[in-house]
Amino acid sequence: MLQISQRGQEMPASPIRKLVPYAEAAKKAGTKVFHLNIGQPDIETPPSILDAVRKADIPVLEYSHSAGNESYRRKLVSYYKSVGINVTYDQIIITTGGSEAIMFGFFCCLNPGDEVIIPEPFYANYNGFAVEAGVKVVPIPSKIETGFALPPIADFEKVITPATKAIIVCSPNNPTGYLYSRQEMEDLKTICLNHNLYLFSDEAYREFSYSGDYISAMHLSGMDEQVVLMDTISKRYSACGARLGAFVTKNKAVYNAAMKFAQARLSPPGLAQIMGEAAVDLPASYFDKPKAEYIARRDLLVKRLNAMPGVFCPNPGGAFYAMAKLPIADSDHFCQWLLESFSHNGQTVMLAPATGFYGTPGLGKDEVRLAYVLNLKDLSDAMDCLEKALEEYPGRTLAAETGLAVENRQSAIGNVQ
Amino acid sequence: MLQISQRGQEMPASPIRKLVPYAEAAKKAGTKVFHLNIGQPDIETPPSILDAVRKADIPVLEYSHSAGNESYRRKLVSYYKSVGINVTYDQIIITTGGSEAIMFGFFCCLNPGDEVIIPEPFYANYNGFAVEAGVKVVPIPSKIETGFALPPIADFEKVITPATKAIIVCSPNNPTGYLYSRQEMEDLKTICLNHNLYLFSDEAYREFSYSGDYISAMHLSGMDEQVVLMDTISKRYSACGARLGAFVTKNKAVYNAAMKFAQARLSPPGLAQIMGEAAVDLPASYFDKPKAEYIARRDLLVKRLNAMPGVFCPNPGGAFYAMAKLPIADSDHFCQWLLESFSHNGQTVMLAPATGFYGTPGLGKDEVRLAYVLNLKDLSDAMDCLEKALEEYPGRTLAAETGLAVENRQSAIGNVQ
Repeated sequence: MLQISQRGQEMPASPIRKLVPYAEAAKKAGTKVFHLNIGQPDIETPPSILDAVRKADIPVLEYSHSAGNESYRRKLVSYYKSVGINVTYDQIIITTGGSEAIMFGFFCCLNPGDEVIIPEPFYANYNGFAVEAGVKVVPIPSKIETGFALPPIADFEKVITPATKAIIVCSPNNPTGYLYSRQEMEDLKTICLNHNLYLFSDEAYREFSYSGDYISAMHLSGMDEQVVLMDTISKRYSACGARLGAFVTKNKAVYNAAMKFAQARLSPPGLAQIMGEAAVDLPASYFDKPKAEYIARRDLLVKRLNAMPGVFCPNPGGAFYAMAKLPIADSDHFCQWLLESFSHNGQTVMLAPATGFYGTPGLGKDEVRLAYVLNLKDLSDAMDCLEKALEEYPGRTLAAETGLAVENRQSAIGNVQ
Repeated sequence: MLQISQRGQEMPASPIRKLVPYAEAAKKAGTKVFHLNIGQPDIETPPSILDAVRKADIPVLEYSHSAGNESYRRKLVSYYKSVGINVTYDQIIITTGGSEAIMFGFFCCLNPGDEVIIPEPFYANYNGFAVEAGVKVVPIPSKIETGFALPPIADFEKVITPATKAIIVCSPNNPTGYLYSRQEMEDLKTICLNHNLYLFSDEAYREFSYSGDYISAMHLSGMDEQVVLMDTISKRYSACGARLGAFVTKNKAVYNAAMKFAQARLSPPGLAQIMGEAAVDLPASYFDKPKAEYIARRDLLVKRLNAMPGVFCPNPGGAFYAMAKLPIADSDHFCQWLLESFSHNGQTVMLAPATGFYGTPGLGKDEVRLAYVLNLKDLSDAMDCLEKALEEYPGRTLAAETGLAVENRQSAIGNVQ
């Protein structure tokens, strides 16, 4: 009898997708499901970047350079410059989505058994890449009461061991929507320099910063050796299916190692690179519309959620996610119940249980993540569903009904950092 | 001082690409370089599959299913049926090139420290995926004298240990062009069943079988648990840059494990999947023209090579590669010399030193791989260069000049299996 590998056994199933069969069953039964569970934006992919592919003359769709087409990398230099990041084209490797950039970081910088610290809740797929690389994720909790601000430096110091090699930060954050301040990024710098750690910076949501200036890890001075930027066009241009990202570092040894991994898989997707190159030519004003749209959605979502008895949702400063504390004891059960046993006017809502975003067992059981990737009308209908559902849900907790102290709630709701 | 990982250090640089700087210098100096060093076909990508992308209505380029679009997987079922492979759509995961399919196989089936046997010479990037997965490659030599036929079962038995978990086979073969016979595939089956091993079958060159019927590992009966098929559209439709492949297995546990790896990276490239789906609609006759072209090139190449004093090239049964034994002692030096110090009528030729395709140190030093991916005129000019170069090369070995015994050479040249 053949065995699958240890890694194959340990690899986590996607926590976001495990409810999919229940959603499919609900749809088959005629219920409309509002998908707030996954970060797939409904914003139109800019037609001009798809037109660039349509118009391209491609007699032979050849392998590109393993680091990506030089013309695209050179254009990305100007894009990065526009967001205050100064890099050269030979500090960039084009990747297959942000996913591959994360994977390159894990494989080039970390040995099996090494530890990587991640403020939780965090993007669940970091767990998958950690299992692939044999790396241990060490979570440190950020708290909904503070809107998921960076945990204090002392909390990092407590868990740093000789095996600690890196910190992962994602700002604006998935799943919390939190936007790290300049001071918080400087705190991360202090920790990394003091303890000789890499700083992996996942900046997928850079363009969607609402409550202040976005600070890139690449904006930090004296961190050229430490910073590995993991980037993607997926959210920036609503082009998740293109699978196009970038691995950016000024650390020459890390870059050279990543190039060897890039060569082993030959090249990143060719047609997507044409899209990416065209995207750099979009006017800076392109982002005005999607950004305004996301802000309007966020405002509606946060207002509606906080008006529901026992619900608390801090105001996210970026991205298109919000985390909410609900008067429930088991978010996995609640999210399944929404699909299996509930409907309101023939509609229901699909949410992501927050448990999948925490590394510490037991955390997130009364929280859910909501991706505001639907238009205002649908989002409002989805909130009607959730409000009604919380009234009807048999597992509603009375204790939670009082929620946080009112003054705490008000200050966190108003927290615009 | 930050360190890169052990894997990052051990990861091999691409042996095919290491001569690139010399080629670039030659071109800058005005020399025309015939590229026989890399498997990038010059055959036109079928315009209809690119048109399918051009015509597609894509308001939002969304993530596809992690296993790839169901519509594409269902169409692939009919494609596989046309080549005698019976699989269902839920035994297929669409991958980012054949590269990712190979990676999924290594990660899902093998633990760090496990051993995988590969007849050498072999596709050099298997080494890279092995380092990523912490797996040990155990090469067993196949010989140019037999045209690189499968080594005898006894040679496999000699190197099998408790750590042996898989055999990789590639037919038609890169780099040798060898096409495995039904008997050889049955021999592999015997070994895998007797020793409880996975059979990883890289079938990138399926359509380019010239000397007999191509036998897929999926054609073998009683091997459903063992076989993992690694596939790609790169060579089939001259679409290397699309980065589209497939991981196919009837082993449910392996499939389920691979799905978790697929979910971690979200989805395969979206535009490429449109191409892949359209490609299934190409008429079976589509392959007639490229196949005839490759056969004509092979015939020219093999004839020209064997007419050169001291050169021996067995007749490849498939793919678009040939291995040749040259009257030289150091193929790395010779290939560099061709670019650095030689030209004939302002032209030279770039070859791949065979050393990069062997796992056993010292093997392949008098061999090169030639990819016949150029038209007949260019190929002929490239052979003129090589012929002249071998006359002029200061490192030419006299000993090799007599070559193999004439009767051996004739029988191997005529070997059409």
